[in-house]
Amino acid sequence: MFIAIDIGGTKTEVALGNKKGEIFQAKVIPAKADFDSFLAPLFSIIGDFSRNKKIKGISIAAPGPLDPQSGTIFSSPNLQWKNVCIKKILEEKFDFPVVLENDANLAGLGESICGAGKDASSIFYLTISTGIGGGFILGKEIYQGASFDAAEIGHTIVLPKGPKCNCGRRGCLEALCSGSAIAKKAKQRVSKNPHSLILKLAGNKKELITAQVVIQAVCQGDRLAREIWEETCYFLGIGIANMINLLNPQMVVIGGGVSRAGAVLFKPLRKIVKQTGWERAVKSCRIVKAKLKNPGIVGALIHISNIKNQISKTQTKNIKTEEVKAKGPRS
Amino acid sequence: MFIAIDIGGTKTEVALGNKKGEIFQAKVIPAKADFDSFLAPLFSIIGDFSRNKKIKGISIAAPGPLDPQSGTIFSSPNLQWKNVCIKKILEEKFDFPVVLENDANLAGLGESICGAGKDASSIFYLTISTGIGGGFILGKEIYQGASFDAAEIGHTIVLPKGPKCNCGRRGCLEALCSGSAIAKKAKQRVSKNPHSLILKLAGNKKELITAQVVIQAVCQGDRLAREIWEETCYFLGIGIANMINLLNPQMVVIGGGVSRAGAVLFKPLRKIVKQTGWERAVKSCRIVKAKLKNPGIVGALIHISNIKNQISKTQTKNIKTEEVKAKGPRS
Repeated sequence: MFIAIDIGGTKTEVALGNKKGEIFQAKVIPAKADFDSFLAPLFSIIGDFSRNKKIKGISIAAPGPLDPQSGTIFSSPNLQWKNVCIKKILEEKFDFPVVLENDANLAGLGESICGAGKDASSIFYLTISTGIGGGFILGKEIYQGASFDAAEIGHTIVLPKGPKCNCGRRGCLEALCSGSAIAKKAKQRVSKNPHSLILKLAGNKKELITAQVVIQAVCQGDRLAREIWEETCYFLGIGIANMINLLNPQMVVIGGGVSRAGAVLFKPLRKIVKQTGWERAVKSCRIVKAKLKNPGIVGALIHISNIKNQISKTQTKNIKTEEVKAKGPRS
Repeated sequence: MFIAIDIGGTKTEVALGNKKGEIFQAKVIPAKADFDSFLAPLFSIIGDFSRNKKIKGISIAAPGPLDPQSGTIFSSPNLQWKNVCIKKILEEKFDFPVVLENDANLAGLGESICGAGKDASSIFYLTISTGIGGGFILGKEIYQGASFDAAEIGHTIVLPKGPKCNCGRRGCLEALCSGSAIAKKAKQRVSKNPHSLILKLAGNKKELITAQVVIQAVCQGDRLAREIWEETCYFLGIGIANMINLLNPQMVVIGGGVSRAGAVLFKPLRKIVKQTGWERAVKSCRIVKAKLKNPGIVGALIHISNIKNQISKTQTKNIKTEEVKAKGPRS
């Protein structure tokens, strides 16, 4: 049995599950800007979950940038934590090994093993919600890259000198196509389009406009919403096509709030990717919607059991080597 | 001993060498637009090289798109060949196994084993000459992707709706930063800048302007040349930064004619990559100049010996399995 923790911008999910990604119990902690006030309920839930159960480890999914080796979350724009060594903190408090990994990588792993990517040997997972994250799963394993920073599709630049991104650069995919970017564009443009359905669907309150409101308006044929949506799909298509040209995956799996738009998103997106990507690479790649409800939690459970397996294999190897050494060569 | 063939836009190199990438003999065939008139000298050189020598195979590097499995070159813009099954043709003529691979992938493999990337566990090789090609070498092996089309950095889009590319799309890296793109920009702009050194260095003949001429003019401080060069480095930097964000390699190795510009290229390029790429990924990645004179040939020699090793290992395995089957269980 393992404990999985998925730290998000609005809430943190904590779950008890097994190595297959099956979840038996789950609890939610609302987001806390302050790290210490987040730790108290977290300790209490872990304590509850581990009572009378044999817990083999804790697996944490968190938004990057982070370092899986030291278990440190460097910064978390939505949480205002800085350089939190969560692995050390939890390992000192509890007696379980703790692993930390990027949430999009883990969600990708979850989708690759139990979700939409089950039959694919390589998938690129893309989550489009407040931000845009990515995870590349190659041969059913997370592709981490030289500094554990691979698959950062959200900060690839698709419009040089384009709108400013939270990362400080300009024209990142995230600054053009994330849920926040869609809402921001709509908020900026409704003033000049006071008859747009967008404002009406948000109860005539500009500050209540979200990506979901824009998508609703798209479905009802609103002109401004369609204009914003077309732009979004265009740049998202270029970002995905660029990634396909480089990684040539068998499948692209898209999750996160914005993916719930369904055909309204996938139909134009596939068309743009076909127009802008390398023909042979695009032809061999399916673009599909994610399937799992909690991909981050599922991936976190699978990830820690994989790591535990690797560790125990290495330990068995070392024990055998030591036995050989202890016996020594016959003299 | 192996024979390596590097098919290029202006010439084809044929070499005799060993599995370490060491070259013992080499000959050149000037480019022939017609495939049949290319075959005659090729057959003759292979015949010469294989006389009284034990040749274990032929390894071909060619510009894509191509299919390594069937050994087919689908199209070659500079050669006007279409759907040439070169593997079959050579295997029917000679009694050696023939392998075909993308030239940038092989050059990358060469640089990774014997060149600038010797000490790196992952390198992205980029060649900037007439076109822009890429090869991703992961753990000293070519990363091919789902349809053998990975690492197509030349056709990632860095300026949507930008200049038209040979591939038919707009704003590809190749359309903005290749040797041909640099020359094209200069040719277009010299008319309005008749005092630019570019024209003078090309002997006052617009049609003789090349990327090398522009680079010369940059080094001599010419204003127009510097403007073109700044633009080129800017978009090249974005293309490389986007790739680093996705693949997070330990090293980027740049070869091809344009890389000979040296510091004039690498200094501004590293600056732009630092500004536009994901901080942690860029910090852990060195951008260096390629080292080998014939990286495609060196890579082709190493590649075929790797494949031969894999085949002989599989054969040994099969033979053993068959032996077991032949012996059968004791009844």
